Amino acid sequence: MNPDRIFENLREEVEKLIPKEMNVSAIAFEGSVVVIYTTEYDKFSGNDELPRTLAQNLRRRVDIRPDPTTLEDTETVREKILSMIPGSAEVFDVNFIEETGEAIIEAINPNEVLGKEGQLLSDIKKESGWNVKVIRAPPIPSKTVSDVRGYIRTYQDDRHKMLKSVARNLVRPAMLGDQWVRITTMGGFRQVGRSASLLTTRDSKILIDCGLDPSSDATPYFGIPEVQPLEKIDAVVVTHAHMDHCGTLPALYKYGYEGPVYCTPPTRDLMALLQLDNIKLGFGEAKKQQYEAQHVRKEIMHTITLKYNETTDIAPDVRLTFHNAGHILGSAIAHFHIGDGLHNVAFSGDTKYEKTWLFNPANNRFPRLETLVIESTYGGHNDVQPSRVDASEEMKEILKQAAELGGKVLIPVFAVGRSQEVMLVIEELMRTGKIPQMNVYLDGMIWEATAIHTAYPEYLNSQLRTQIFQQNENPFLSPIFKRVETSIMREEICHSPDSCIVLATSGMMAGGPVMEYFKEWADDAKNTLIFVGYQSEGSLGRTIQRGRQDITLNSKGKQIDLDIKMNRVTVDGFSGHSDRKQLMKYIQSLEPKPSKIIIGHGEDRKCTDLASSIYKKFNIETKAPLNLETIRLR
Amino acid sequence: MNPDRIFENLREEVEKLIPKEMNVSAIAFEGSVVVIYTTEYDKFSGNDELPRTLAQNLRRRVDIRPDPTTLEDTETVREKILSMIPGSAEVFDVNFIEETGEAIIEAINPNEVLGKEGQLLSDIKKESGWNVKVIRAPPIPSKTVSDVRGYIRTYQDDRHKMLKSVARNLVRPAMLGDQWVRITTMGGFRQVGRSASLLTTRDSKILIDCGLDPSSDATPYFGIPEVQPLEKIDAVVVTHAHMDHCGTLPALYKYGYEGPVYCTPPTRDLMALLQLDNIKLGFGEAKKQQYEAQHVRKEIMHTITLKYNETTDIAPDVRLTFHNAGHILGSAIAHFHIGDGLHNVAFSGDTKYEKTWLFNPANNRFPRLETLVIESTYGGHNDVQPSRVDASEEMKEILKQAAELGGKVLIPVFAVGRSQEVMLVIEELMRTGKIPQMNVYLDGMIWEATAIHTAYPEYLNSQLRTQIFQQNENPFLSPIFKRVETSIMREEICHSPDSCIVLATSGMMAGGPVMEYFKEWADDAKNTLIFVGYQSEGSLGRTIQRGRQDITLNSKGKQIDLDIKMNRVTVDGFSGHSDRKQLMKYIQSLEPKPSKIIIGHGEDRKCTDLASSIYKKFNIETKAPLNLETIRLR
Repeated sequence: MNPDRIFENLREEVEKLIPKEMNVSAIAFEGSVVVIYTTEYDKFSGNDELPRTLAQNLRRRVDIRPDPTTLEDTETVREKILSMIPGSAEVFDVNFIEETGEAIIEAINPNEVLGKEGQLLSDIKKESGWNVKVIRAPPIPSKTVSDVRGYIRTYQDDRHKMLKSVARNLVRPAMLGDQWVRITTMGGFRQVGRSASLLTTRDSKILIDCGLDPSSDATPYFGIPEVQPLEKIDAVVVTHAHMDHCGTLPALYKYGYEGPVYCTPPTRDLMALLQLDNIKLGFGEAKKQQYEAQHVRKEIMHTITLKYNETTDIAPDVRLTFHNAGHILGSAIAHFHIGDGLHNVAFSGDTKYEKTWLFNPANNRFPRLETLVIESTYGGHNDVQPSRVDASEEMKEILKQAAELGGKVLIPVFAVGRSQEVMLVIEELMRTGKIPQMNVYLDGMIWEATAIHTAYPEYLNSQLRTQIFQQNENPFLSPIFKRVETSIMREEICHSPDSCIVLATSGMMAGGPVMEYFKEWADDAKNTLIFVGYQSEGSLGRTIQRGRQDITLNSKGKQIDLDIKMNRVTVDGFSGHSDRKQLMKYIQSLEPKPSKIIIGHGEDRKCTDLASSIYKKFNIETKAPLNLETIRLR
Repeated sequence: MNPDRIFENLREEVEKLIPKEMNVSAIAFEGSVVVIYTTEYDKFSGNDELPRTLAQNLRRRVDIRPDPTTLEDTETVREKILSMIPGSAEVFDVNFIEETGEAIIEAINPNEVLGKEGQLLSDIKKESGWNVKVIRAPPIPSKTVSDVRGYIRTYQDDRHKMLKSVARNLVRPAMLGDQWVRITTMGGFRQVGRSASLLTTRDSKILIDCGLDPSSDATPYFGIPEVQPLEKIDAVVVTHAHMDHCGTLPALYKYGYEGPVYCTPPTRDLMALLQLDNIKLGFGEAKKQQYEAQHVRKEIMHTITLKYNETTDIAPDVRLTFHNAGHILGSAIAHFHIGDGLHNVAFSGDTKYEKTWLFNPANNRFPRLETLVIESTYGGHNDVQPSRVDASEEMKEILKQAAELGGKVLIPVFAVGRSQEVMLVIEELMRTGKIPQMNVYLDGMIWEATAIHTAYPEYLNSQLRTQIFQQNENPFLSPIFKRVETSIMREEICHSPDSCIVLATSGMMAGGPVMEYFKEWADDAKNTLIFVGYQSEGSLGRTIQRGRQDITLNSKGKQIDLDIKMNRVTVDGFSGHSDRKQLMKYIQSLEPKPSKIIIGHGEDRKCTDLASSIYKKFNIETKAPLNLETIRLR
């Protein structure tokens, strides 16, 4: 059946199901969502049952919106809305999207806008006639979050066109012949970096992740014929915002891809932050750029966000659901239900199967699961790491000793994930008096990444969420944390006589602000350098970690020789990756058990070691493909 | 460098290398061949050294032709040529291709046209001014061979354009990035039928075989994205002319492929024969056609033939060489040399590693070989067959007994390969008086297929070739063989009281003329039915072979009941496939040993059984992929 005919049938069904008095003025199809416009939006506002019934009957997601011609002007409505909301909500802004009739209230405390059982929001909707929504304005203002929301508002028209074209694509007729399901490994197999997999079925083509190898700037193999032309890809799915999973994504929009990107809301914001930073870094190093800021904007405009456990059609025969992966903020296991029960495959991306300071452990329950694609970063049989509790204890001892020395503490970190873990540990140690109070400076992108974390508390673990929501003790807002905003401030911190802790990027000391502190503090035995993250072979961080005494660095065009006297310690156990034990425990705990497990995202021996161990222990077929191979799942 | 620039450089090189007095009037590029036109063709005719020096220096194949404006008119030249050739050459025809300056003499005895050490041909060239070539006119006239040569002459202009476009494609610039080599299984893996593999490199895309599953009419998986659009395929290579290797090929030209097909000359003619017959059969059975005769013609027009051991560029980074596979006439192992020594992979197609009545055993020496793709039709550990000698002995005993009974002998056969083997055995048995003389009737396509065999004696085994060339005892020309040309003749044979032998298609008694004889002869215990080929599960042949007494057949719309009384015997050992022992011996004999062997063209258990046996015995990595998988070779 052709798309227009399918849409016509859906319209007829909607009209049958919806009460006459709702006065439907238009029915539109945006992505996988059926949008119903009504001139009597206030009549619907109180009715929660109707959209649910519609969704069940249409077997599609449904959104009911006010007819734009019935809407009062925005200034009047803004005043009306603000007058209804208590000051405790701390409203940050109200944005109007005339096309969809949405009025989006950004508030520090969105619960205060919702009111008891959502009553206040419902009243505001009725009074204003607009489709009022409330989102959390980040308590730490984030330029990224506000930029991203800004782009999307600015590109509203293009976005609408995009959503309509996605909707048409979703109902295109099926091909003839046998159905089949395959995975092609485009990058990040038998290696860490440039993750990319192509999921192809008889009817669709889906790209999962589109990374950049941070150590070599290598991109996935986009030269292979099955991925060309890029226009033929139905959807790109991003598991999480690390560069080795999303670092090449904007380039797709440079080379012709026009389709949607699916990810969680925090992934969208974090990836914009990291991609833009990558452009900035590349510019500084005069490197050839894979893409420009305009391509990041285009990517954001094409991004359709999905929360955990929300299912949506992303291709005629593929439904996507994200589940928590426990790795970083918004990180997801992407579960694909293919065909009418033909096959179910989950791409775990990177996972942590342990409750961490930030996140719940990775989800291990799926409605159905025949194939699992899993990482093996720490998949070797010796890759066992200390627990979170042990790591925290060790951090306490090291910081106590450092404080006794009366010097400075420098911690090189990655902006996303590890920084926030370390922040939480330090905040707790200081709050509970286990280590002395002192300033903790955040330099580089850490502050901004933290701001994004505070914008999405629902993605944090239950304990932290409770702390933020119910006890109003958001640890990220602790006064001990100070943002380093200027190079003058950095100079002052470097030369101040006071003890302090500095968290700064880059995590492997390959450049970035961490180097400024290091140069000043390296030759003083009172100071301490703490490594909390993996230092890759060949990085400066690894050289220093191993105890090399004399180092020559480039500083503003001059060579400087450093005689390292500061203490150097390493605290393991902060990794966002499951270690070997956790990987095996995860497989053991899976329900249902998959019949095939494909292993990637690890060095050669880690992949093959984990593959053979899983096969031996669980008698599940495993494969550890090279890049550029195709495995048939069905 | 752009193609025009490359061609310009080549032209300059040619001009440097070629003597001034040759007067080069144009230099053209056709496929991988550099064509040099001269107004002084006669000066070159005697010079064998020049083209060799040119080829070595240019590292390309070279063809020197007379400038068309210098050529005398064809009628004058025809007379001149015919007057120079002795009657013993038995000239069949002379064809002129004005564009290339070729005059092609078809002779029954081409050696008589060549003269001693090629002197006569050289004289003819000088006298005529044309580029005179001699080819063997088939001693049994073949409509297929003459049709195929006819098409190619007719489509000379299109063919020229095609060859030029191939030449440009061969010198296109290389892509950037890592080089890699992969094989994607599109059909014929873990099954027999619809063989097709896609060989992809960073720079090229080559399809090897394009079969049709004869039992289900299933085609290879052309829906996969890596093979679409068909225009992007650089070359199609056909290993041999059986339908499960070339049966879908003409459809490529229906759906947009415009590039070349590479195969041996006999493969070209045999595949045209079988494809056209398939259209006829499909028409009779009112089946949906995959293609029309026009697509077969287009395929032939695009076919570039290569003899065994002739190497040619077929893509910017791929050189192809065919080696004898021993399976059927013109069957080849396709050896691909990729990149500048990057990788070497051989697709064996179907192979016979035993000297048969028709062919030498499959080639087992390659300059280099890292990966071998091999069949496993008889790859199971029990798949052991009698030798050719034993099979011949058994045939003798059976035919002797049949002659004593004074009845008829009916042998269902496939037109290509097995029929000719059986013909040779019978001819020898009668010639040497081991069985009584009687008529051997050939019905169905057998005669035509045999005619094609006689057109290419250089593809037969050394013994048979000697017999044909030097002793003038071509066994196919024996008077015992009679062609059945009309249904009246068939009727007469059916009802004649004389003993005789009939070879008729189809080989599994799924229809065709064999059924006419069977219906007449089945109820007489004096008659004998001999099975020499594999009868697949579910075929009528298998049912009868197993001894079923009563059979109901459809005959011209009526149901007829047969009470089978004729003798039924099976003679094993006529297979064109290596049996299990020969497959293992072939691997053992290979020089050099490949580091990877990919196994296909066999039922599920045959593939996995052979894979694990080769791995255990030779410690070579083996893979038995499913259809639709991709294996990285490099």
